[in-house]
Amino acid sequence: MVFVTCDLEGVFTPEIWIEVAERLGIEKLRITTREEKDYDKLMKMRIRTLKDNHVRFEDIGRIINSIDLLEGAGDFLNRLRKLCPVAVVSDTFSEFFNSGFAQKLNWPLIFCHDLVIRDGYIDDYRIRIQDSKKRTVQALHALSYEVFAFGDSYNDISMIKEADSGSLFRAPANIIAEYPEILATDEYDSLYSKIEDFVGKEKERNDGR
Amino acid sequence: MVFVTCDLEGVFTPEIWIEVAERLGIEKLRITTREEKDYDKLMKMRIRTLKDNHVRFEDIGRIINSIDLLEGAGDFLNRLRKLCPVAVVSDTFSEFFNSGFAQKLNWPLIFCHDLVIRDGYIDDYRIRIQDSKKRTVQALHALSYEVFAFGDSYNDISMIKEADSGSLFRAPANIIAEYPEILATDEYDSLYSKIEDFVGKEKERNDGR
Repeated sequence: MVFVTCDLEGVFTPEIWIEVAERLGIEKLRITTREEKDYDKLMKMRIRTLKDNHVRFEDIGRIINSIDLLEGAGDFLNRLRKLCPVAVVSDTFSEFFNSGFAQKLNWPLIFCHDLVIRDGYIDDYRIRIQDSKKRTVQALHALSYEVFAFGDSYNDISMIKEADSGSLFRAPANIIAEYPEILATDEYDSLYSKIEDFVGKEKERNDGR
Repeated sequence: MVFVTCDLEGVFTPEIWIEVAERLGIEKLRITTREEKDYDKLMKMRIRTLKDNHVRFEDIGRIINSIDLLEGAGDFLNRLRKLCPVAVVSDTFSEFFNSGFAQKLNWPLIFCHDLVIRDGYIDDYRIRIQDSKKRTVQALHALSYEVFAFGDSYNDISMIKEADSGSLFRAPANIIAEYPEILATDEYDSLYSKIEDFVGKEKERNDGR
C-alpha cells in the first residue's frame, strides 16, 4: 500500500517566515537557511528579534491566520487524501501550523516541531527529531508502506531519495538541474497523476495472483 | 511531543461486519474473531459467503455508507485533532473506511489493510503488516513521539501497552477486569481529559529549562 509524505511551505502555503517578515516590516526576519546555514543560530536570532520588537506569539498567530494557501492547494490535498494516506512532514512548528493552515487544509496529519511560548512570547523551540523527513519515510517503510514523497527544496531531497518514488514540486531551477534523476513538476494536476499512477502500479503488482 | 493512536470500530463506529450481517440478514457473517480465532479462515469464509449470496462490493459499500458514527464520535475526534496528531489504527480495510466513515470523520489518517476487488466482488484481502497496532506505536517512538493509545478490545492491548500512556474505551467488563492496570472510561469527555492531561505533562516536562 502507498503512503504519501510531503512538504508544507512552498508546496501548500507560502514561506511562513518571509510572510511574517513582510507583514511586520522587519527586514532581519527575511533571513533564511539560504543565508544562515546554522539553524539554531537562525532561530535564536528570530526569537531575539521578535522580542526586541515586542512581537508576541498571538501577533504572529494573527498574521499566519491571514495568509492564504497557494491557489488550488486545498483541493489538491483533499483529493490526494481520498487516494491514499498522506502526512505533511515539515520543519515548521505545530503552533504556526495550527494558527490557520491546519483548518484551511482540513486538518491533515502533520509531523513537525514545537515552539516554547512563555509569558506570551516565543521563547525557545523544540526540534522533535533531526532529519525528520527522511526518518518519517523510514518509519513508514517499517510499517510496510511504499512511499511517494514530494517537496520543493534542498531539505526535501533526502526524503524523496529515501522514498520509493517522488517528485520535486515548484522547485527552483538550480535544484532541478542538480537532481535530474528526480521528477519535477509545477502543477498539482500532473503531480496528482504521477501519484495516482504509482498507486495503481503498486496495487496491480501486489493484488496480482 | 504527543501522538495519539486509536482504534476505529467500537470507538468511533459500530462493528462493521456485525452491521453488514444484520443489514444483509446473513447470519454467518455475524461470526467474528470471538468465535473463529483463525483470522484468515474467517476472512475466507466471509468472502465465500458474500459471493455465494451474490453480494457485490458496491452493495457492502452502500451499507457501510448508511451506518452512522457513534454519537459524539465526530466531535470528539475533531477536538482531539486540534490537540495533537492522531492516527486511527485499525484492522479494517481502506475500501470499507472510504465507503463513508472517512468522510463522516473528516478524513483522519488511518493505518489499515486492503481488499482485493475483482469483477466487482471482494476476492481477497491484503494484511499490510502483522501486529500493525503495536508496530505503529514503535514507528512513532522511532520518530521521538510520546504515544497515548486507546481502544476497546483485546487486539488493542499490545498497542496500549507499547504506548507511554493509554486507556480502554467502552471495553467489555471482562477485558477491564483482566487489565486492571490500564485506565478505562466510557465517555469521550473523560477520555479527552486524560489525553489533555498527558499532553500537558509532556509539554511541562520538555519545555522546562
